[in-house]
Amino acid sequence: MFPSDQPQANYDDPFHGMKPKIGVMGSCSEPISKQARAAARSLGEAIARNDCVLITGASPGLPYDSVLGAKSLGGLTVGISPGLSLAEHVGKYASPCQGFDVIVYTGSGLMGREVENIRSSDMVVIIGGRSGTLGEFAIAYDEGKLIGVLRGTGGIADQVELLSRICEKETGGHIIYGTDPAALLSDLLKYYRTVHCANPSCFS
Amino acid sequence: MFPSDQPQANYDDPFHGMKPKIGVMGSCSEPISKQARAAARSLGEAIARNDCVLITGASPGLPYDSVLGAKSLGGLTVGISPGLSLAEHVGKYASPCQGFDVIVYTGSGLMGREVENIRSSDMVVIIGGRSGTLGEFAIAYDEGKLIGVLRGTGGIADQVELLSRICEKETGGHIIYGTDPAALLSDLLKYYRTVHCANPSCFS
Amino acid sequence: MFPSDQPQANYDDPFHGMKPKIGVMGSCSEPISKQARAAARSLGEAIARNDCVLITGASPGLPYDSVLGAKSLGGLTVGISPGLSLAEHVGKYASPCQGFDVIVYTGSGLMGREVENIRSSDMVVIIGGRSGTLGEFAIAYDEGKLIGVLRGTGGIADQVELLSRICEKETGGHIIYGTDPAALLSDLLKYYRTVHCANPSCFS
Amino acid sequence: MFPSDQPQANYDDPFHGMKPKIGVMGSCSEPISKQARAAARSLGEAIARNDCVLITGASPGLPYDSVLGAKSLGGLTVGISPGLSLAEHVGKYASPCQGFDVIVYTGSGLMGREVENIRSSDMVVIIGGRSGTLGEFAIAYDEGKLIGVLRGTGGIADQVELLSRICEKETGGHIIYGTDPAALLSDLLKYYRTVHCANPSCFS
Repeated sequence: MFPSDQPQANYDDPFHGMKPKIGVMGSCSEPISKQARAAARSLGEAIARNDCVLITGASPGLPYDSVLGAKSLGGLTVGISPGLSLAEHVGKYASPCQGFDVIVYTGSGLMGREVENIRSSDMVVIIGGRSGTLGEFAIAYDEGKLIGVLRGTGGIADQVELLSRICEKETGGHIIYGTDPAALLSDLLKYYRTVHCANPSCFS
Repeated sequence: MFPSDQPQANYDDPFHGMKPKIGVMGSCSEPISKQARAAARSLGEAIARNDCVLITGASPGLPYDSVLGAKSLGGLTVGISPGLSLAEHVGKYASPCQGFDVIVYTGSGLMGREVENIRSSDMVVIIGGRSGTLGEFAIAYDEGKLIGVLRGTGGIADQVELLSRICEKETGGHIIYGTDPAALLSDLLKYYRTVHCANPSCFS
Repeated sequence: MFPSDQPQANYDDPFHGMKPKIGVMGSCSEPISKQARAAARSLGEAIARNDCVLITGASPGLPYDSVLGAKSLGGLTVGISPGLSLAEHVGKYASPCQGFDVIVYTGSGLMGREVENIRSSDMVVIIGGRSGTLGEFAIAYDEGKLIGVLRGTGGIADQVELLSRICEKETGGHIIYGTDPAALLSDLLKYYRTVHCANPSCFS
Repeated sequence: MFPSDQPQANYDDPFHGMKPKIGVMGSCSEPISKQARAAARSLGEAIARNDCVLITGASPGLPYDSVLGAKSLGGLTVGISPGLSLAEHVGKYASPCQGFDVIVYTGSGLMGREVENIRSSDMVVIIGGRSGTLGEFAIAYDEGKLIGVLRGTGGIADQVELLSRICEKETGGHIIYGTDPAALLSDLLKYYRTVHCANPSCFS
């Protein structure tokens, strides 16, 4: 518990005694390039290696490649499901459950659960992606989150510079670009610890 | 109540005995052009004149100009608030309450409430807009809604053609462009009645 | 809009320029007594006659009897649906849509939507009811709402005195009992205007 | 991933390759008896010892005693927060963050987050409790969950037999009573594995 009733920017302990939470977003269905899949898996491995927690929308596709990568190294993985139950998760949304330490059932559908996913992540990383990922980028940017973008993975990831210009708005959101998953994660963690932890979102 | 337990595409009664619900989305804070404000107000008036219900995120700015326009002609207006209560709506989110027949308190914040707003609208119209509106477009498009865009109002509205190309995905979402608010609403209602009512969203 | 950024208890205008919102809760499925159905319908009529807005969980049963009562006198009716869409509302939840001016789709299921229903109502009235209504009473009481109870309608309504003793907690919630729907509504409106508007819920 | 698109009751693997998730609910504020606190802590220890995941509403009080118990033995702990962010969690809701492996931010307030908490738990255990816990029992019972009750811990826990009679409804919910935390958990796990996994909730 905090001694005072408001968490202060704490550069000695920017994660307040908890592990960093990394959200991973990207294409959930084909077509997905082999390169993007490999990047997603490497990112999951880097998340586990850095003792971070991986959060995804519990979907198949690129976010699940990250889950499998993190799990292969014993990382902790959380899925925020669009469904109201495991039965809906698997049946209605055709989504996987193996490899998740926890699945939280929101019932709020494809995009609704992403809002919760993004808020529960200290920072989010975008790989590839189409319309759903466009929404995730916009939500994260509008709510002032720290965002990592894996360049060269196609789709939305390769349009983020354009998109951030289109937004024409200072939201507190900050974007870091990279091509190597492990190096990007390292850059994100460093920026969060030294700068972004002072204002992690519009709700801080 | 429906005679069978699944609503069927019903071209004779595409709104199932209810009034059409029109969601209006766009910039909530300055800078907003006079032209965009006039368009938003005209759209609100057209919504009331066509006996439709106006739904917004209960924010200030362009959506509120539509509320004032609809209300000036006795239209029915609904706000889906980011706050948990009127006190949060007015205090935490600096949002108006006068002019709304109903405000629904979601507590789900700026982007969370937009998901519900979009789902509760039969179709949505985008005017101007920045990062929040980008998210709203992406949510509506990803969930297969009918979307109207008021060209010439700046911001996101004037980037939707580009954005829909970037999405690279068939979602069932359909976009209709226009410059005159009343004519755009008329086109949207016609398309919904003749085509889109068969598959109003990804949850139908 | 309010001149200051916090809504103040305003005994001259306790509803802040809006119509009072009355939530109605109770049994959604058989067995339901004829007496309870008549009371629910009378309550809906009284809500319309007093120019209030009726909010329900958009279910069948007693709350829908209130909707039909309110609608017979031209009242405004709002349903907060457990489903993500009209198709889910009608198909998955076997719920009616005719008679509602607006249905808001939450996707949050049977109990999730009740939380939003309660927060969006200035006061709630309980008629009959079983386990779902027990939850609704507990949510409303725990969040400090004004609650009306129609005695003699069976089920939860006739156990509220016992239940409030079991809760053993001062929450700001206040309960008013009555047997005549119109008189109960009148008592609730008077208490809200003179006392409860100062602290309408735990989120004010 | 499942081979077919509906999860089947699988008596060989009732948790579908995941660890059992146990929700713990009870009083969040004083007065709380020493006995109830000790029971909550023991329950947390038993959850960790049985390699289950503990889920709470991330509140202080009895659920947090379970978190500390589980954590003392290296168990995995998840909090579903009423707030939109860590800042709201700690500031607005005066809730702890240390000891949680993951905190999910719902923004849906005191009772809203409990709905998600309950859905994400395979079974829930009630200790002591007042109006909030009454709501949690009602939600869990109404949605057909498996419920454990720690007798002798006061408050709602000692009224559950009465409450389940008042509900007068077959929901699929099943209640198991006990006085020893470890034995109760063992009974719950056995019943889930042999019976309840076939119909874990109303959404299965």
